[in-house]
Amino acid sequence: MTNEQLATKIKLANKLAQASGDVIKKYFRQPNLVTETKIFERSSIVTIADREAEDAMVDLIRKEAPQDGIIREEGENIPSQNGYYWVLDPIDGTSSFVKGLPIFGTLIGLVNLDENITLLGCVNQPILQERWLGIKGHSPYLNGQVFENPYSQQIDSQIKDACLTSTTPLMFVTPRQQAIALELQKVCKRTAFGGDCYNYVSLATGWSSMPMVILESDLKYYDFCALIPIIEGVGAIITDWSGNPLNSQSTEVLATSNSMLHQQALKIIAQGTNV
Amino acid sequence: MTNEQLATKIKLANKLAQASGDVIKKYFRQPNLVTETKIFERSSIVTIADREAEDAMVDLIRKEAPQDGIIREEGENIPSQNGYYWVLDPIDGTSSFVKGLPIFGTLIGLVNLDENITLLGCVNQPILQERWLGIKGHSPYLNGQVFENPYSQQIDSQIKDACLTSTTPLMFVTPRQQAIALELQKVCKRTAFGGDCYNYVSLATGWSSMPMVILESDLKYYDFCALIPIIEGVGAIITDWSGNPLNSQSTEVLATSNSMLHQQALKIIAQGTNV
Repeated sequence: MTNEQLATKIKLANKLAQASGDVIKKYFRQPNLVTETKIFERSSIVTIADREAEDAMVDLIRKEAPQDGIIREEGENIPSQNGYYWVLDPIDGTSSFVKGLPIFGTLIGLVNLDENITLLGCVNQPILQERWLGIKGHSPYLNGQVFENPYSQQIDSQIKDACLTSTTPLMFVTPRQQAIALELQKVCKRTAFGGDCYNYVSLATGWSSMPMVILESDLKYYDFCALIPIIEGVGAIITDWSGNPLNSQSTEVLATSNSMLHQQALKIIAQGTNV
Repeated sequence: MTNEQLATKIKLANKLAQASGDVIKKYFRQPNLVTETKIFERSSIVTIADREAEDAMVDLIRKEAPQDGIIREEGENIPSQNGYYWVLDPIDGTSSFVKGLPIFGTLIGLVNLDENITLLGCVNQPILQERWLGIKGHSPYLNGQVFENPYSQQIDSQIKDACLTSTTPLMFVTPRQQAIALELQKVCKRTAFGGDCYNYVSLATGWSSMPMVILESDLKYYDFCALIPIIEGVGAIITDWSGNPLNSQSTEVLATSNSMLHQQALKIIAQGTNV
Protein backbone atom coordinates (compact mmCIF):
# COMPACT_ATOMS: atom_id res chain seq x y z
CA MET A 1 0.00 0.00 0.00
CA THR A 2 1.40 3.39 -1.00
CA ASN A 3 1.57 6.28 1.47
CA GLU A 4 -1.17 7.97 -0.48
CA GLN A 5 -3.43 4.93 -0.26
CA LEU A 6 -2.68 4.67 3.46
CA ALA A 7 -3.61 8.33 3.94
CA THR A 8 -6.97 7.62 2.27
CA LYS A 9 -7.58 4.70 4.61
CA ILE A 10 -6.69 6.81 7.67
CA LYS A 11 -9.18 9.41 6.50
CA LEU A 12 -11.83 6.72 6.13
CA ALA A 13 -11.07 5.29 9.58
CA ASN A 14 -11.66 8.74 11.06
CA LYS A 15 -14.93 9.06 9.14
CA LEU A 16 -16.05 5.67 10.47
CA ALA A 17 -15.25 6.76 14.02
CA GLN A 18 -17.19 9.97 13.54
CA ALA A 19 -20.23 8.28 12.01
CA SER A 20 -20.47 5.52 14.62
CA GLY A 21 -19.87 8.05 17.39
CA ASP A 22 -22.76 10.21 16.19
CA VAL A 23 -25.10 7.22 16.47
CA ILE A 24 -23.80 6.12 19.86
CA LYS A 25 -24.07 9.58 21.41
CA LYS A 26 -27.73 9.62 20.42
CA TYR A 27 -28.46 6.45 22.42
CA PHE A 28 -26.06 6.64 25.38
CA ARG A 29 -27.85 6.88 28.74
CA GLN A 30 -31.29 6.55 27.15
CA PRO A 31 -33.58 4.39 29.31
CA ASN A 32 -35.44 1.29 28.21
CA LEU A 33 -33.28 0.91 25.12
CA VAL A 34 -34.57 -1.94 23.01
CA THR A 35 -32.31 -4.90 23.52
CA GLU A 36 -32.30 -8.14 21.65
CA THR A 37 -30.90 -11.37 22.97
CA LYS A 38 -28.18 -13.07 21.01
CA ILE A 39 -28.74 -16.77 21.19
CA PHE A 40 -26.02 -19.34 21.97
CA GLU A 41 -23.50 -16.71 23.03
CA ARG A 42 -22.12 -15.64 26.38
CA SER A 43 -22.44 -11.99 25.45
CA SER A 44 -26.17 -12.06 25.38
CA ILE A 45 -27.42 -8.61 24.49
CA VAL A 46 -27.10 -6.25 21.60
CA THR A 47 -28.59 -2.79 21.61
CA ILE A 48 -30.11 -0.80 18.80
CA ALA A 49 -27.03 1.42 19.12
CA ASP A 50 -24.76 -1.52 18.20
CA ARG A 51 -26.71 -2.24 15.03
CA GLU A 52 -27.13 1.34 13.87
CA ALA A 53 -23.51 2.27 14.56
CA GLU A 54 -22.28 -0.77 12.64
CA ASP A 55 -24.65 -0.09 9.73
CA ALA A 56 -23.39 3.51 9.52
CA MET A 57 -19.81 2.24 9.20
CA VAL A 58 -20.65 -0.47 6.69
CA ASP A 59 -22.53 2.02 4.49
CA LEU A 60 -19.51 4.33 4.45
CA ILE A 61 -17.06 1.55 3.56
CA ARG A 62 -19.33 0.24 0.78
CA LYS A 63 -19.48 3.74 -0.65
CA GLU A 64 -15.88 4.89 -0.26
CA ALA A 65 -13.93 1.62 -0.50
CA PRO A 66 -16.18 -0.93 -2.24
CA GLN A 67 -13.33 -3.39 -2.84
CA ASP A 68 -12.50 -3.72 0.87
CA GLY A 69 -14.04 -6.59 2.81
CA ILE A 70 -15.71 -6.32 6.22
CA ILE A 71 -15.50 -8.53 9.30
CA ARG A 72 -17.99 -7.34 11.85
CA GLU A 73 -19.68 -8.13 15.14
CA GLU A 74 -23.37 -7.82 14.39
CA GLY A 75 -24.03 -8.51 10.70
CA GLU A 76 -22.69 -10.89 8.03
CA ASN A 77 -19.10 -10.55 6.86
CA ILE A 78 -18.45 -9.10 3.40
CA PRO A 79 -15.68 -10.68 1.29
CA SER A 80 -12.73 -8.57 0.13
CA GLN A 81 -11.75 -8.05 -3.51
CA ASN A 82 -8.26 -6.77 -2.69
CA GLY A 83 -7.15 -8.66 0.44
CA TYR A 84 -7.97 -5.84 2.85
CA TYR A 85 -10.63 -6.15 5.51
CA TRP A 86 -12.15 -3.64 7.89
CA VAL A 87 -12.70 -5.33 11.25
CA LEU A 88 -15.51 -3.60 13.17
CA ASP A 89 -16.90 -3.72 16.69
CA PRO A 90 -19.40 -0.87 17.04
CA ILE A 91 -19.58 -1.04 20.85
CA ASP A 92 -16.86 -3.00 22.62
CA GLY A 93 -17.98 -2.91 26.23
CA THR A 94 -21.72 -3.35 25.82
CA SER A 95 -22.01 -3.89 29.57
CA SER A 96 -20.49 -0.50 30.29
CA PHE A 97 -22.64 1.13 27.61
CA VAL A 98 -25.76 -0.50 29.07
CA LYS A 99 -24.80 0.58 32.62
CA GLY A 100 -24.23 4.18 31.46
CA LEU A 101 -20.45 4.05 32.01
CA PRO A 102 -18.42 5.93 29.36
CA ILE A 103 -15.62 3.36 29.11
CA PHE A 104 -16.75 1.41 26.04
CA GLY A 105 -15.27 2.02 22.60
CA THR A 106 -15.78 1.57 18.88
CA LEU A 107 -13.04 -0.64 17.42
CA ILE A 108 -12.03 -0.15 13.79
CA GLY A 109 -9.17 -2.23 12.36
CA LEU A 110 -7.83 -2.50 8.83
CA VAL A 111 -6.02 -5.75 8.14
CA ASN A 112 -4.29 -7.54 5.30
CA LEU A 113 -5.63 -10.98 6.19
CA ASP A 114 -3.30 -12.97 3.89
CA GLU A 115 -0.23 -11.51 5.58
CA ASN A 116 -1.88 -11.12 9.01
CA ILE A 117 -0.78 -7.48 9.20
CA THR A 118 -3.00 -4.96 10.96
CA LEU A 119 -2.25 -1.73 9.11
CA LEU A 120 -4.54 0.54 11.11
CA GLY A 121 -6.33 0.41 14.42
CA CYS A 122 -8.71 3.02 15.77
CA VAL A 123 -10.45 3.09 19.15
CA ASN A 124 -13.08 5.80 19.46
CA GLN A 125 -14.73 6.83 22.75
CA PRO A 126 -17.41 9.26 21.58
CA ILE A 127 -18.63 10.42 25.01
CA LEU A 128 -15.21 11.35 26.42
CA GLN A 129 -14.13 12.47 22.92
CA GLU A 130 -11.03 10.30 22.89
CA ARG A 131 -9.77 8.76 19.66
CA TRP A 132 -6.71 6.54 19.46
CA LEU A 133 -5.17 5.80 16.06
CA GLY A 134 -2.42 3.24 15.56
CA ILE A 135 -0.54 2.81 12.29
CA LYS A 136 1.67 -0.25 11.71
CA GLY A 137 5.31 0.77 12.24
CA HIS A 138 4.52 4.20 13.67
CA SER A 139 3.87 5.75 17.07
CA PRO A 140 0.14 5.91 17.78
CA TYR A 141 -1.91 9.06 18.25
CA LEU A 142 -4.46 10.12 20.84
CA ASN A 143 -6.64 12.90 19.44
CA GLY A 144 -3.95 13.67 16.89
CA GLN A 145 -1.07 13.83 19.40
CA VAL A 146 1.75 11.28 19.63
CA PHE A 147 2.20 10.01 23.20
CA GLU A 148 4.89 8.10 25.05
CA ASN A 149 4.34 5.16 27.37
CA PRO A 150 6.33 5.43 30.63
CA TYR A 151 6.30 1.66 31.27
CA SER A 152 7.15 0.13 27.90
CA GLN A 153 10.94 0.26 28.32
CA GLN A 154 11.09 -0.47 32.05
CA ILE A 155 13.46 -3.40 32.39
CA ASP A 156 12.94 -3.92 36.13
CA SER A 157 9.18 -4.52 36.05
CA GLN A 158 8.01 -7.34 38.28
CA ILE A 159 4.68 -9.06 37.81
CA LYS A 160 4.12 -9.02 41.60
CA ASP A 161 3.87 -5.20 41.33
CA ALA A 162 1.44 -5.26 38.40
CA CYS A 163 -2.31 -4.74 38.20
CA LEU A 164 -4.04 -7.68 36.51
CA THR A 165 -7.27 -6.99 34.69
CA SER A 166 -9.89 -8.93 32.74
CA THR A 167 -13.31 -7.73 31.66
CA THR A 168 -15.08 -10.54 33.49
CA PRO A 169 -14.08 -13.82 35.14
CA LEU A 170 -16.94 -15.43 33.19
CA MET A 171 -14.74 -15.27 30.06
CA PHE A 172 -12.53 -18.02 31.49
CA VAL A 173 -14.49 -21.03 30.37
CA THR A 174 -12.23 -24.09 30.46
CA PRO A 175 -10.60 -25.49 33.63
CA ARG A 176 -7.17 -24.64 32.12
CA GLN A 177 -8.21 -21.01 31.53
CA GLN A 178 -9.67 -20.74 35.02
CA ALA A 179 -6.52 -22.21 36.60
CA ILE A 180 -4.29 -19.79 34.71
CA ALA A 181 -6.44 -16.79 35.61
CA LEU A 182 -6.45 -17.77 39.31
CA GLU A 183 -2.69 -18.28 39.32
CA LEU A 184 -2.08 -14.83 37.80
CA GLN A 185 -4.51 -13.31 40.32
CA LYS A 186 -2.41 -14.82 43.10
CA VAL A 187 0.84 -13.43 41.69
CA CYS A 188 -0.21 -9.90 40.73
CA LYS A 189 -0.59 -7.12 43.30
CA ARG A 190 -4.19 -6.39 42.41
CA THR A 191 -6.93 -7.86 40.23
CA ALA A 192 -9.58 -5.58 38.73
CA PHE A 193 -12.53 -6.63 36.58
CA GLY A 194 -14.42 -4.60 33.97
CA GLY A 195 -13.03 -2.27 31.36
CA ASP A 196 -13.14 -3.99 27.94
CA CYS A 197 -11.17 -2.08 25.28
CA TYR A 198 -10.60 0.81 27.67
CA ASN A 199 -8.16 -1.37 29.64
CA TYR A 200 -6.06 -1.82 26.50
CA VAL A 201 -5.95 1.83 25.47
CA SER A 202 -5.17 2.81 29.05
CA LEU A 203 -2.32 0.28 29.02
CA ALA A 204 -1.07 1.70 25.69
CA THR A 205 -1.32 5.30 26.85
CA GLY A 206 0.44 4.57 30.14
CA TRP A 207 -2.47 5.94 32.15
CA SER A 208 -2.31 3.33 34.89
CA SER A 209 -0.62 3.98 38.23
CA MET A 210 1.00 0.53 38.11
CA PRO A 211 2.27 -1.56 35.20
CA MET A 212 -0.55 -3.65 33.75
CA VAL A 213 -1.24 -7.21 32.67
CA ILE A 214 -4.44 -7.91 30.72
CA LEU A 215 -5.52 -11.54 30.46
CA GLU A 216 -8.61 -12.35 28.40
CA SER A 217 -10.12 -15.32 26.63
CA ASP A 218 -13.24 -16.16 24.64
CA LEU A 219 -12.59 -13.10 22.43
CA LYS A 220 -13.45 -12.61 18.77
CA TYR A 221 -11.19 -11.04 16.13
CA TYR A 222 -13.10 -7.74 16.21
CA ASP A 223 -12.49 -7.53 19.99
CA PHE A 224 -8.73 -7.07 19.59
CA CYS A 225 -7.70 -6.47 15.94
CA ALA A 226 -7.82 -2.65 16.19
CA LEU A 227 -5.84 -2.69 19.45
CA ILE A 228 -2.73 -4.32 17.98
CA PRO A 229 -1.06 -1.32 16.26
CA ILE A 230 -1.95 0.99 19.15
CA ILE A 231 -0.32 -1.26 21.75
CA GLU A 232 2.64 -2.36 19.63
CA GLY A 233 3.21 1.23 18.50
CA VAL A 234 4.29 2.29 22.00
CA GLY A 235 6.46 -0.76 22.62
CA ALA A 236 3.91 -2.52 24.84
CA ILE A 237 3.05 -6.15 24.08
CA ILE A 238 -0.04 -7.96 22.83
CA THR A 239 0.03 -11.66 21.83
CA ASP A 240 -1.91 -14.84 22.37
CA TRP A 241 -1.35 -16.91 25.54
CA SER A 242 1.58 -18.74 23.90
CA GLY A 243 3.37 -15.51 23.03
CA ASN A 244 2.52 -15.82 19.33
CA PRO A 245 1.19 -12.98 17.18
CA LEU A 246 -2.59 -12.68 17.24
CA ASN A 247 -4.53 -13.63 14.13
CA SER A 248 -8.15 -13.83 13.05
CA GLN A 249 -8.59 -17.21 14.79
CA SER A 250 -7.11 -16.19 18.15
CA THR A 251 -9.39 -16.15 21.18
CA GLU A 252 -6.90 -15.86 24.08
CA VAL A 253 -5.19 -12.50 24.48
CA LEU A 254 -2.34 -11.40 26.77
CA ALA A 255 -1.28 -7.74 26.84
CA THR A 256 1.38 -6.27 29.11
CA SER A 257 2.92 -2.85 29.68
CA ASN A 258 6.36 -4.21 28.70
CA SER A 259 8.30 -7.28 27.64
CA MET A 260 9.54 -8.07 31.17
CA LEU A 261 5.98 -8.57 32.39
CA HIS A 262 5.16 -10.48 29.23
CA GLN A 263 7.92 -13.03 29.85
CA GLN A 264 6.86 -13.50 33.47
CA ALA A 265 3.18 -13.87 32.54
CA LEU A 266 3.98 -16.39 29.79
CA LYS A 267 5.92 -18.50 32.29
CA ILE A 268 2.93 -18.63 34.64
CA ILE A 269 0.58 -19.45 31.75
CA ALA A 270 2.86 -22.28 30.62
CA GLN A 271 2.85 -23.75 34.13
CA GLY A 272 -0.96 -23.49 34.26
CA THR A 273 -1.23 -25.20 30.89
CA ASN A 274 0.72 -28.17 32.20
CA VAL A 275 -1.51 -28.60 35.24
CA MET B 1 -31.01 20.16 62.55
CA THR B 2 -32.40 23.52 61.39
CA ASN B 3 -32.58 24.41 57.70
CA GLU B 4 -29.84 26.93 58.29
CA GLN B 5 -27.58 24.32 59.88
CA LEU B 6 -28.33 21.93 57.02
CA ALA B 7 -27.41 24.62 54.48
CA THR B 8 -24.05 25.04 56.26
CA LYS B 9 -23.44 21.28 56.07
CA ILE B 10 -24.33 21.21 52.34
CA LYS B 11 -21.83 24.01 51.78
CA LEU B 12 -19.19 22.05 53.66
CA ALA B 13 -19.94 18.87 51.67
CA ASN B 14 -19.35 20.81 48.45
CA LYS B 15 -16.08 22.20 49.84
CA LEU B 16 -14.96 18.66 50.74
CA ALA B 17 -15.76 17.48 47.22
CA GLN B 18 -13.83 20.37 45.72
CA ALA B 19 -10.78 19.90 47.97
CA SER B 20 -10.54 16.13 47.45
CA GLY B 21 -11.13 16.54 43.73
CA ASP B 22 -8.24 19.01 43.43
CA VAL B 23 -5.90 16.42 44.96
CA ILE B 24 -7.20 13.55 42.86
CA LYS B 25 -6.94 15.45 39.56
CA LYS B 26 -3.26 16.07 40.33
CA TYR B 27 -2.53 12.33 40.59
CA PHE B 28 -4.94 10.76 38.07
CA ARG B 29 -3.13 8.99 35.20
CA GLN B 30 0.29 9.65 36.69
CA PRO B 31 2.59 6.66 36.19
CA ASN B 32 4.45 4.79 38.91
CA LEU B 33 2.29 6.28 41.62
CA VAL B 34 3.60 5.20 45.00
CA THR B 35 1.31 2.52 46.32
CA GLU B 36 1.32 0.98 49.73
CA THR B 37 -0.06 -2.41 50.56
CA LYS B 38 -2.76 -2.67 53.15
CA ILE B 39 -2.16 -5.76 55.18
CA PHE B 40 -4.88 -8.30 56.05
CA GLU B 41 -7.39 -6.77 53.67
CA ARG B 42 -8.79 -7.84 50.34
CA SER B 43 -8.52 -4.35 48.94
CA SER B 44 -4.79 -4.40 48.98
CA ILE B 45 -3.54 -1.08 47.73
CA VAL B 46 -3.86 2.52 48.67
CA THR B 47 -2.40 5.33 46.65
CA ILE B 48 -0.87 8.58 47.76
CA ALA B 49 -3.96 10.20 46.19
CA ASP B 50 -6.23 8.34 48.67
CA ARG B 51 -4.29 9.60 51.67
CA GLU B 52 -3.87 13.19 50.51
CA ALA B 53 -7.50 13.54 49.40
CA GLU B 54 -8.71 12.20 52.74
CA ASP B 55 -6.34 14.46 54.69
CA ALA B 56 -7.61 17.49 52.77
CA MET B 57 -11.20 16.64 53.76
CA VAL B 58 -10.35 15.92 57.40
CA ASP B 59 -8.47 19.23 57.72
CA LEU B 60 -11.50 21.11 56.41
CA ILE B 61 -13.94 19.37 58.76
CA ARG B 62 -11.68 19.94 61.78
CA LYS B 63 -11.53 23.63 60.89
CA GLU B 64 -15.14 24.30 59.90
CA ALA B 65 -17.09 21.79 62.01
CA PRO B 66 -14.83 20.77 64.90
CA GLN B 67 -17.67 19.11 66.85
CA ASP B 68 -18.50 16.67 64.02
CA GLY B 69 -16.96 13.22 64.13
CA ILE B 70 -15.30 11.44 61.20
CA ILE B 71 -15.49 7.84 59.98
CA ARG B 72 -13.01 7.33 57.21
CA GLU B 73 -11.32 4.77 55.02
CA GLU B 74 -7.63 5.49 55.45
CA GLY B 75 -6.96 7.08 58.83
CA GLU B 76 -8.29 6.68 62.37
CA ASN B 77 -11.88 7.66 63.14
CA ILE B 78 -12.53 10.85 65.12
CA PRO B 79 -15.31 10.81 67.76
CA SER B 80 -18.26 13.18 67.46
CA GLN B 81 -19.24 15.72 70.11
CA ASN B 82 -22.74 16.28 68.71
CA GLY B 83 -23.82 12.90 67.28
CA TYR B 84 -23.04 13.79 63.66
CA TYR B 85 -20.37 11.97 61.68
CA TRP B 86 -18.86 12.62 58.28
CA VAL B 87 -18.29 9.29 56.54
CA LEU B 88 -15.49 9.57 53.97
CA ASP B 89 -14.11 7.42 51.18
CA PRO B 90 -11.61 9.53 49.23
CA ILE B 91 -11.42 7.15 46.24
CA ASP B 92 -14.13 4.53 45.94
CA GLY B 93 -13.00 2.51 42.95
CA THR B 94 -9.28 2.39 43.55
CA SER B 95 -8.98 -0.25 40.82
CA SER B 96 -10.49 2.08 38.25
CA PHE B 97 -8.33 4.97 39.48
CA VAL B 98 -5.22 2.80 39.24
CA LYS B 99 -6.18 1.61 35.74
CA GLY B 100 -6.74 5.21 34.56
CA LEU B 101 -10.53 4.78 34.20
CA PRO B 102 -12.57 7.85 35.25
CA ILE B 103 -15.37 5.90 36.96
CA PHE B 104 -14.23 6.11 40.60
CA GLY B 105 -15.72 8.63 43.03
CA THR B 106 -15.22 10.43 46.31
CA LEU B 107 -17.95 9.49 48.79
CA ILE B 108 -18.97 12.00 51.46
CA GLY B 109 -21.82 11.15 53.82
CA LEU B 110 -23.17 12.99 56.86
CA VAL B 111 -24.98 10.76 59.32
CA ASN B 112 -26.70 10.97 62.67
CA LEU B 113 -25.35 7.68 63.96
CA ASP B 114 -27.68 7.40 66.98
CA GLU B 115 -30.75 7.57 64.77
CA ASN B 116 -29.10 5.89 61.75
CA ILE B 117 -30.20 8.73 59.48
CA THR B 118 -27.99 9.75 56.57
CA LEU B 119 -28.75 13.44 56.19
CA LEU B 120 -26.46 14.12 53.25
CA GLY B 121 -24.68 12.08 50.62
CA CYS B 122 -22.30 13.41 47.99
CA VAL B 123 -20.56 11.49 45.20
CA ASN B 124 -17.93 13.52 43.38
CA GLN B 125 -16.27 12.42 40.10
CA PRO B 126 -13.61 15.08 39.63
CA ILE B 127 -12.40 14.01 36.17
CA LEU B 128 -15.80 13.94 34.48
CA GLN B 129 -16.87 16.88 36.67
CA GLU B 130 -19.99 15.15 37.96
CA ARG B 131 -21.25 15.78 41.48
CA TRP B 132 -24.30 14.11 42.95
CA LEU B 133 -25.84 15.48 46.14
CA GLY B 134 -28.58 13.69 48.05
CA ILE B 135 -30.47 15.26 50.96
CA LYS B 136 -32.68 13.11 53.21
CA GLY B 137 -36.31 13.62 52.19
CA HIS B 138 -35.53 15.57 49.01
CA SER B 139 -34.89 14.85 45.34
CA PRO B 140 -31.15 14.55 44.69
CA TYR B 141 -29.11 16.84 42.46
CA LEU B 142 -26.56 16.18 39.73
CA ASN B 143 -24.39 19.26 39.24
CA GLY B 144 -27.09 21.38 40.85
CA GLN B 145 -29.95 20.03 38.74
CA VAL B 146 -32.76 17.83 40.03
CA PHE B 147 -33.21 14.70 37.89
CA GLU B 148 -35.90 12.06 37.51
CA ASN B 149 -35.35 8.33 37.34
CA PRO B 150 -37.33 6.61 34.54
CA TYR B 151 -37.28 3.19 36.24
CA SER B 152 -38.13 3.92 39.85
CA GLN B 153 -41.92 3.80 39.45
CA GLN B 154 -42.05 1.00 36.84
CA ILE B 155 -44.43 -1.57 38.28
CA ASP B 156 -43.90 -4.18 35.56
CA SER B 157 -40.13 -4.61 35.96
CA GLN B 158 -38.96 -8.21 35.79
CA ILE B 159 -35.63 -9.32 37.19
CA LYS B 160 -35.06 -11.49 34.09
CA ASP B 161 -34.82 -8.25 32.08
CA ALA B 162 -32.39 -6.57 34.48
CA CYS B 163 -28.64 -6.01 34.35
CA LEU B 164 -26.91 -7.41 37.43
CA THR B 165 -23.69 -5.78 38.51
CA SER B 166 -21.07 -6.22 41.23
CA THR B 167 -17.66 -4.58 41.39
CA THR B 168 -15.87 -7.93 41.55
CA PRO B 169 -16.87 -11.56 42.13
CA LEU B 170 -14.01 -11.70 44.66
CA MET B 171 -16.21 -9.75 47.11
CA PHE B 172 -18.41 -12.83 47.56
CA VAL B 173 -16.44 -14.61 50.23
CA THR B 174 -18.69 -17.16 51.95
CA PRO B 175 -20.31 -20.16 50.20
CA ARG B 176 -23.73 -18.59 50.92
CA GLN B 177 -22.72 -15.30 49.28
CA GLN B 178 -21.26 -17.12 46.29
CA ALA B 179 -24.41 -19.25 45.87
CA ILE B 180 -26.65 -16.18 45.98
CA ALA B 181 -24.49 -14.27 43.48
CA LEU B 182 -24.49 -17.22 41.06
CA GLU B 183 -28.25 -17.66 41.35
CA LEU B 184 -28.86 -13.97 40.58
CA GLN B 185 -26.44 -14.21 37.63
CA LYS B 186 -28.53 -17.06 36.25
CA VAL B 187 -31.78 -15.13 36.59
CA CYS B 188 -30.73 -11.69 35.31
CA LYS B 189 -30.35 -10.91 31.61
CA ARG B 190 -26.75 -9.79 31.90
CA THR B 191 -24.01 -9.71 34.52
CA ALA B 192 -21.37 -6.99 34.41
CA PHE B 193 -18.43 -6.58 36.76
CA GLY B 194 -16.53 -3.42 37.68
CA GLY B 195 -17.93 0.00 38.42
CA ASP B 196 -17.84 0.59 42.21
CA CYS B 197 -19.82 3.71 43.27
CA TYR B 198 -20.39 4.66 39.64
CA ASN B 199 -22.82 1.74 39.32
CA TYR B 200 -24.93 3.19 42.14
CA VAL B 201 -25.04 6.75 40.83
CA SER B 202 -25.81 5.46 37.34
CA LEU B 203 -28.67 3.41 38.85
CA ALA B 204 -29.91 6.51 40.72
CA THR B 205 -29.67 8.76 37.67
CA GLY B 206 -31.43 6.23 35.44
CA TRP B 207 -28.51 6.18 33.01
CA SER B 208 -28.68 2.46 32.31
CA SER B 209 -30.36 1.03 29.22
CA MET B 210 -31.97 -1.70 31.33
CA PRO B 211 -33.24 -1.69 34.93
CA MET B 212 -30.41 -2.53 37.32
CA VAL B 213 -29.71 -4.78 40.27
CA ILE B 214 -26.52 -4.20 42.26
CA LEU B 215 -25.44 -6.99 44.60
CA GLU B 216 -22.34 -6.44 46.74
CA SER B 217 -20.83 -7.80 49.90
CA ASP B 218 -17.71 -7.31 52.00
CA LEU B 219 -18.38 -3.54 52.02
CA LYS B 220 -17.54 -1.00 54.70
CA TYR B 221 -19.81 1.80 55.93
CA TYR B 222 -17.89 4.43 53.92
CA ASP B 223 -18.51 2.39 50.74
CA PHE B 224 -22.27 2.99 50.80
CA CYS B 225 -23.29 5.61 53.42
CA ALA B 226 -23.18 8.56 50.97
CA LEU B 227 -25.15 6.62 48.36
CA ILE B 228 -28.26 6.14 50.52
CA PRO B 229 -29.95 9.57 50.16
CA ILE B 230 -29.05 9.76 46.45
CA ILE B 231 -30.68 6.42 45.66
CA GLU B 232 -33.63 6.76 48.03
CA GLY B 233 -34.22 10.33 46.86
CA VAL B 234 -35.30 9.15 43.38
CA GLY B 235 -37.45 6.28 44.66
CA ALA B 236 -34.90 3.58 43.89
CA ILE B 237 -34.04 1.09 46.63
CA ILE B 238 -30.94 0.35 48.71
CA THR B 239 -31.01 -2.06 51.68
CA ASP B 240 -29.06 -4.96 53.10
CA TRP B 241 -29.60 -8.47 51.73
CA SER B 242 -32.53 -9.02 54.13
CA GLY B 243 -34.31 -5.90 52.94
CA ASN B 244 -33.48 -3.98 56.14
CA PRO B 245 -32.17 -0.41 56.22
CA LEU B 246 -28.38 -0.20 55.99
CA ASN B 247 -26.45 0.85 59.07
CA SER B 248 -22.82 1.33 60.06
CA GLN B 249 -22.36 -2.41 60.62
CA SER B 250 -23.86 -3.56 57.29
CA THR B 251 -21.56 -5.31 54.81
CA GLU B 252 -24.04 -6.76 52.28
CA VAL B 253 -25.77 -4.28 49.99
CA LEU B 254 -28.62 -4.73 47.51
CA ALA B 255 -29.67 -1.80 45.31
CA THR B 256 -32.33 -1.95 42.61
CA SER B 257 -33.91 0.47 40.16
CA ASN B 258 -37.33 -0.05 41.75
CA SER B 259 -39.28 -1.92 44.41
CA MET B 260 -40.50 -4.62 42.00
CA LEU B 261 -36.95 -5.74 41.30
CA HIS B 262 -36.14 -5.44 44.99
CA GLN B 263 -38.88 -7.88 45.97
CA GLN B 264 -37.82 -10.37 43.31
CA ALA B 265 -34.13 -10.12 44.28
CA LEU B 266 -34.93 -10.56 47.99
CA LYS B 267 -36.86 -13.74 47.19
CA ILE B 268 -33.86 -15.21 45.36
CA ILE B 269 -31.51 -14.17 48.18
CA ALA B 270 -33.79 -15.82 50.76
CA GLN B 271 -33.78 -19.06 48.75
CA GLY B 272 -29.97 -18.92 48.50
CA THR B 273 -29.70 -18.34 52.23
CA ASN B 274 -31.64 -21.51 52.91
CA VAL B 275 -29.39 -23.65 50.70
